[in-house]
Amino acid sequence: MTSGFDVRASALNIRPVRKEDHAQIEDFLRASPNFNADEVTTALELIDESLAGDPDYLVNVLENEQGHIIGFECHGPTPLTDGTFDLYWIAVDPRAQKRGHGGRLLRATEDDVARRGGRLLLIETSSQPAYAPTVAFYRRNGYHLDARIHDFYRRGDDKLVFAKEMTEESGRPGRSG
Amino acid sequence: MTSGFDVRASALNIRPVRKEDHAQIEDFLRASPNFNADEVTTALELIDESLAGDPDYLVNVLENEQGHIIGFECHGPTPLTDGTFDLYWIAVDPRAQKRGHGGRLLRATEDDVARRGGRLLLIETSSQPAYAPTVAFYRRNGYHLDARIHDFYRRGDDKLVFAKEMTEESGRPGRSG
Repeated sequence: MTSGFDVRASALNIRPVRKEDHAQIEDFLRASPNFNADEVTTALELIDESLAGDPDYLVNVLENEQGHIIGFECHGPTPLTDGTFDLYWIAVDPRAQKRGHGGRLLRATEDDVARRGGRLLLIETSSQPAYAPTVAFYRRNGYHLDARIHDFYRRGDDKLVFAKEMTEESGRPGRSG
Repeated sequence: MTSGFDVRASALNIRPVRKEDHAQIEDFLRASPNFNADEVTTALELIDESLAGDPDYLVNVLENEQGHIIGFECHGPTPLTDGTFDLYWIAVDPRAQKRGHGGRLLRATEDDVARRGGRLLLIETSSQPAYAPTVAFYRRNGYHLDARIHDFYRRGDDKLVFAKEMTEESGRPGRSG
């Protein structure tokens, strides 16, 4: 308080998205090999919906020490369900991967879902080999494959639905894992 | 042409929804035991999106001989897929059921999906016993259970995903079945 030193400036920070983050998120999404142009457009539309106040889309960003946005996630309550949430997007700047940032964003998501009374978090992804690291990431974080819709994205490309039950511990600050 | 007799007035008619149909659809949806208030609201929102020109939601209505709307369906291309479509809603006025109207609407849907180059039509429903007649209706019309998301709607109430591949014959006027 008496010096100019701000401890928060030396740490990673997860916070709700703001309008001025849009360009930075677009920048690293377009640099991500896992997302095609349609997917980037869809992700940016969800962010805009969230910024416009739509309660169905909740977006958090991960800021690095320099205040740059290096990741984001978008989740929300699944329509017509009681306590189910979807994680619609989670992405980390490809230049900042393999440092646990995805796990940080995912825990922040789970905390928020649990705080809102959610009991189940679902994540959809593709069965294509390119998504194997993504699938491994979900499994490592406690998600199991709950359903598969065959040929969903295109012939030979199934939709996989991963699920994790939110327990009492989810959402508790300082829990292990 | 020379008499006042219009043969079309004596037949059932399936056509795209118009603004003036909204009240009649709302009326019979509210009379349907299978839909709760949230679901009716969601269905009406999709109809409004369609009327506003959103190409993601295509709505047809079934008119009876007197020009009353006795059923509707809403389908559309599933985002981020190549050739997959969702049937979001299909409903027949409870006072006009058990007369094959649901099957007529479903065939009109399949024709439209095939005409648009769709290869797969998906329908989601609930595992609750109340939906057993709905499930039987889909199976009778060639849909198979492709996936189940456990506890999706609420604990003990799974989401069932039924699927049917659109073949060359789908969409051909006058095909059998």
